Amino acid sequence: MELFYAYETDGRFCRLDADESGHCIRVLRHRAGDEIHVIDGLGTMFRCRLTDDSPKGAEAEVLEAFPGWGGHPYRLTVACCPTKNNDRFEWFVEKATEVGVDRIVPTIGERSERKVYKTDRALRIALSATKQSLKARIPEIAEPVSVKDFICTDAPCHSERSEESLKLIAYCFEGDTRRISIQEALRGYQGSDVTILIGPEGDFSPEEARLAVEHGYIPVHLGASRLRTETAAVLAATAVYLAFE
Amino acid sequence: MELFYAYETDGRFCRLDADESGHCIRVLRHRAGDEIHVIDGLGTMFRCRLTDDSPKGAEAEVLEAFPGWGGHPYRLTVACCPTKNNDRFEWFVEKATEVGVDRIVPTIGERSERKVYKTDRALRIALSATKQSLKARIPEIAEPVSVKDFICTDAPCHSERSEESLKLIAYCFEGDTRRISIQEALRGYQGSDVTILIGPEGDFSPEEARLAVEHGYIPVHLGASRLRTETAAVLAATAVYLAFE
Repeated sequence: MELFYAYETDGRFCRLDADESGHCIRVLRHRAGDEIHVIDGLGTMFRCRLTDDSPKGAEAEVLEAFPGWGGHPYRLTVACCPTKNNDRFEWFVEKATEVGVDRIVPTIGERSERKVYKTDRALRIALSATKQSLKARIPEIAEPVSVKDFICTDAPCHSERSEESLKLIAYCFEGDTRRISIQEALRGYQGSDVTILIGPEGDFSPEEARLAVEHGYIPVHLGASRLRTETAAVLAATAVYLAFE
Repeated sequence: MELFYAYETDGRFCRLDADESGHCIRVLRHRAGDEIHVIDGLGTMFRCRLTDDSPKGAEAEVLEAFPGWGGHPYRLTVACCPTKNNDRFEWFVEKATEVGVDRIVPTIGERSERKVYKTDRALRIALSATKQSLKARIPEIAEPVSVKDFICTDAPCHSERSEESLKLIAYCFEGDTRRISIQEALRGYQGSDVTILIGPEGDFSPEEARLAVEHGYIPVHLGASRLRTETAAVLAATAVYLAFE
């Protein structure tokens, strides 16, 4: 099943941008009258009939709409410090999108070697992984923010929902006895809105960890293995995915 | 903490090959008398004193041995069909090694687009990920075998242990009601030896799935998300890792 992304839809027609149109018309050779499947990136998949097969700007008429298509029963924000090697962070974006994440926030820690992060490539990867994994909602890729600002100012993933969000911070301080396993933290939570904070290669600073705990973050560990930043981020997203199965 | 791999050790001395010696002596500038940490790749980490700092073939005297260092409380074999794109399979090798896997078997399915797989790069990646994630045991990378041969002839991961191995096959046949979630399968298992079979992009053939079930494999699903082959393989390894936490 091939999905196309509509940059614009009114619920009756879907419009594809030049990239998507070129792929649909030039590469896959769809023609007016063909049935195609289109996502709005916000959670709805449309079964459509192609009405305009222009390779620069194709248009399709909606035959049927599937709201919440390919969704998951939780709301997950992963705030993760970008890795020195961009490919590793982008790999995390792809894998977290496949597994199921709602928002990715690149956070810059005091010990981050990478202090600047451009989101353009991550946005393309998130779109492509969303289509590839048959989801209708593209995860939000936020603009980079410092770890401290994220901890202090971040709004819940879904502001309309009243439930308390479960906020977790995974750090590696040796001998820190406050940490519980991420599964234990998830088992004890009845809601569906989870935020996980993953540090840089050099871990969080004690000050960042203290601030997080002050703001209601639960310190967790991800088990006995020593994981790279991007592996820890994907494992944390996977633990949430499995906990809500 | 930096680890070096000894291609040869008698428990009293560890010998590093040219690559490891060059990294230890030329790059990190260790000299005779320095204390270094060496793994044998079989599960033991040695605290050593460097006795010969030749960059072609360094040698170190064992001061202390730590058997089972960085190990995990299960034995996991992941048999996975190599992806069209080699990088994706090698990414799985790296991530599964970080999380904790004992044996990786590249299997060739009837629907595999890649019918040939060379293990040399995967072996290097497994070694590097083992050192990076502070483990002493390098996962075995088996030679490629067909899915059917693997199902019919594979010996348990640890032949000496008597317990029955839990054998799981993850496939995506729509409407197959026999499948249970991988967590459910793991919850119902009291042993510690797990084998997971992950198919190619085109999934297993019905014949391969039938054969697996005949040979005691439990059909499992990995949740609602549609995952790439390498993502499914890492998610399955992560589910085992979390189940034994």
